[in-house]
Amino acid sequence: MSEISTLGEFGLIDHLTKTIKLENSSTIKGVGDDAAILDYSGKDSRVLVTTDLLLEGIHFDLTYVPLKHLGYKAAMVNFSDIYAMNGMPKQITVSIGVSSRFQTEDLEELYDGIKLACERHKVDLVGGDTSASVTGLTISITCIGYGKEGKIVCRNGAKNTDIICVSGNLGAAYMGLQILEREKALFQNNNGEEGMQPDFAGKEYLLERQLKPEARRDIIEKLDKAGIVPTAMMDISDGLSSELLHICKESKVGCRVYEDKIPIDYETAVQAEEFNMNLVTAALNGGEDYELLFTVPLSSHEKINEIEGIKAIGYITADENEKVMVTRDGAEMTLKAQGWTGF
Amino acid sequence: MSEISTLGEFGLIDHLTKTIKLENSSTIKGVGDDAAILDYSGKDSRVLVTTDLLLEGIHFDLTYVPLKHLGYKAAMVNFSDIYAMNGMPKQITVSIGVSSRFQTEDLEELYDGIKLACERHKVDLVGGDTSASVTGLTISITCIGYGKEGKIVCRNGAKNTDIICVSGNLGAAYMGLQILEREKALFQNNNGEEGMQPDFAGKEYLLERQLKPEARRDIIEKLDKAGIVPTAMMDISDGLSSELLHICKESKVGCRVYEDKIPIDYETAVQAEEFNMNLVTAALNGGEDYELLFTVPLSSHEKINEIEGIKAIGYITADENEKVMVTRDGAEMTLKAQGWTGF
Repeated sequence: MSEISTLGEFGLIDHLTKTIKLENSSTIKGVGDDAAILDYSGKDSRVLVTTDLLLEGIHFDLTYVPLKHLGYKAAMVNFSDIYAMNGMPKQITVSIGVSSRFQTEDLEELYDGIKLACERHKVDLVGGDTSASVTGLTISITCIGYGKEGKIVCRNGAKNTDIICVSGNLGAAYMGLQILEREKALFQNNNGEEGMQPDFAGKEYLLERQLKPEARRDIIEKLDKAGIVPTAMMDISDGLSSELLHICKESKVGCRVYEDKIPIDYETAVQAEEFNMNLVTAALNGGEDYELLFTVPLSSHEKINEIEGIKAIGYITADENEKVMVTRDGAEMTLKAQGWTGF
Repeated sequence: MSEISTLGEFGLIDHLTKTIKLENSSTIKGVGDDAAILDYSGKDSRVLVTTDLLLEGIHFDLTYVPLKHLGYKAAMVNFSDIYAMNGMPKQITVSIGVSSRFQTEDLEELYDGIKLACERHKVDLVGGDTSASVTGLTISITCIGYGKEGKIVCRNGAKNTDIICVSGNLGAAYMGLQILEREKALFQNNNGEEGMQPDFAGKEYLLERQLKPEARRDIIEKLDKAGIVPTAMMDISDGLSSELLHICKESKVGCRVYEDKIPIDYETAVQAEEFNMNLVTAALNGGEDYELLFTVPLSSHEKINEIEGIKAIGYITADENEKVMVTRDGAEMTLKAQGWTGF
């Protein structure tokens, strides 16, 4: 028998789905990208479908995640996958398994978060399933979105000389998680003593990045307005290194990125210092930032520079074996995926 | 605080979703039927979406459910929801949470069942999510299907004098479950003694109805061929009574059904006798048969009679308060939903 952990999440999905043959003309693209692509119009409208499973004890810890934030984030990570295809999320279904320790009010809070996310991103909650659970809280969300043939962006379109871009900044969600974990450990060491208040002053931004990430609809809108269709795109859920290696693998190209170009917020840097952690490692491998990683043709360079919130961090190369980060002192290191895979 | 169990599954979904306003023109119908109805074509093509969450210890018991059967059934119950809209399932996404006691080979078995179901019903597996779990096995499947405006059947279209029909026979899946539960109890009482073999001889049909239900694509195809579009339809997952009351409530009508018309297989009857159970109760409330319950206009009576595997069991009445079953001896009893709700 084989341990699942030897395959890892992506290896496992590959392994289980590699023999699948697509039968329906409405299936344009199946497993292997941020979302599947379906054609239910016979014209250029496309249906995008993505799904995420969130399990208590694996993806979230209710000792420090409020249910409303959890609902918000659960919806947001799905919207993010649709944006990562250059699409617009339109509908979600929400399935929830709850054990008897939850009350109706708890689920209302969870749904309040989901509904708030839906309102902000103009998404309709159209169905779902609710069930008792003998174990922890389970949340499964499927998001359906709209995309247009010719504008949908997959992971496999990056070309030699394309510019590699990221939105926002990286590593902040990871730092937020470290703060929460530290406070939890302190609280537990004090046996949950009354009056023990977590020390979150000045950490609001990092905590919000972890607890309440915002999918980058604004970036998709800005790119559209600027007439830019990326050649490849992913959202950064596992970490920049991991996602960039995915794009390279799918596109059969290499990459060179520059350490000093990776956008990192000041508060992230301060926190890394406080924790005595390597800042670049956090930014490269932290994950859960839900920023967009994408590539654009060299000819879009000027246009991209004019868009606020997007940073060029390097470029695509023809050599599939080249996965290089150039450090501040000019040394070259090989990018490795250390993203958290859940196994 | 309110116990979730006081609301029940349907009450809970109603409660959590009642304030939802639909924002997108692509959302034709949201929460409240077997599937949501979406328009991604701008013409008469419709996208149907349904989702089901299966949790170990609630929806299945791995002591007697083989993983391949579980995968098959998990896919099938979703197909069934699409057929219940008079649509055709086309794609599924599969999300799975697994604890460390599962090996890669276990997941292969599970996927083999899912893939077999997909092959038989011409459905493409297009995506999903796979994660570690600290608890039991979790399976969340979303199915996307095709329907045509004007041919999609909801729960709210039943009219006075319509004939109430069911496909196949009822109660068999429930009897299959009782057999499995009995053998499990016997096995446990014998401390799992070696050589203790379950006694399933002659029970194959009932076990298959429980472990490997078949969604009724054939009935949808036959109805289409006969030119019949039902006025209302649901699949029978919770039990005939529960589903019929749903259709009446949504359609604002009443019903009269006849005990002696309810289709019950001979083996189901034999088993009920053996268990000293009320056969009609099992057929009315047993659930998990995944047969179709639907209504057709009185004018389709002859056509329906000619289709093999469909039985007329009564008719719709105008009086919303009338939910009557006429027993074999001519007495009238009120139908009640005792379907298993999972809470």
